[in-house]
Amino acid sequence: MRALGVDPGLSATGYGVVEGAGSGFRFVAKGTIRTRAGDPLPRRLRAIFAALERVVEEHDPRVVAVEEVFMAKNVSAGMFTAQVAGVVALLAEGREFVSFSPRQVKKFICGYGGAPKEQVLGMVEHLLGIEGLVSDHAADALALAVCALLSRR
Amino acid sequence: MRALGVDPGLSATGYGVVEGAGSGFRFVAKGTIRTRAGDPLPRRLRAIFAALERVVEEHDPRVVAVEEVFMAKNVSAGMFTAQVAGVVALLAEGREFVSFSPRQVKKFICGYGGAPKEQVLGMVEHLLGIEGLVSDHAADALALAVCALLSRR
Repeated sequence: MRALGVDPGLSATGYGVVEGAGSGFRFVAKGTIRTRAGDPLPRRLRAIFAALERVVEEHDPRVVAVEEVFMAKNVSAGMFTAQVAGVVALLAEGREFVSFSPRQVKKFICGYGGAPKEQVLGMVEHLLGIEGLVSDHAADALALAVCALLSRR
Repeated sequence: MRALGVDPGLSATGYGVVEGAGSGFRFVAKGTIRTRAGDPLPRRLRAIFAALERVVEEHDPRVVAVEEVFMAKNVSAGMFTAQVAGVVALLAEGREFVSFSPRQVKKFICGYGGAPKEQVLGMVEHLLGIEGLVSDHAADALALAVCALLSRR
């Protein structure tokens, strides 16, 4: 069973695909979709939509997990992030759609919600049997995909 | 020149199409897209997307105006509204895309931002030469479309 994780953002949206194999996991793909700040909002959302649509078509995930958007930090940035999350949800039609808060991701992957970012990264590398992961949107998206698979066990 | 106004909402999204004819306006279409509360988010967003896509294809507006989403009132509801607004922006690709706050709509249509809802409704009826408009999402969307045309004059 395959999961797609998405860390939504207007400037950079990360995605990660993970396959749940038996009791383990297999890394499938990851990437970051970037849009230009000077472009109109519809063009930027359309670029994210088109790129994620290709990912969904290529990897055919059964579950799509998106990071829950928080408004408290920065209302205006949160608005755009929510709009991107809407685009992600649109692409999840006909699939299972779940969302996790950063705390939930940490809890599922490291066992406690206050785990530092590096520890999450290390656990994701360990679970996927990969190395050299750097902390970025794609890594956050991979963590979401792992979380989606872990939450079903 | 034609404008599509959209009042975004997960349960009910209103739309209104207005044609700017010389110094006047002509009512073209209006409606409300409803989704079921029990359905998963991706299905509800997809339904709104599909219905609005038909409206855009049929009426081919040059400008798409959406109501600005405010987070202050209710963060969770605002999140969903922002997601719907993202879907609207996606459909505006290749067209002009603008957003107005409720205050701006009132200011453009009635001359001051504190105008009561009934006065906005009356002015929209007057400008479009129609009667019997009731205060709903479709009427708000019509006001947005009129506002988009007025703001260009």
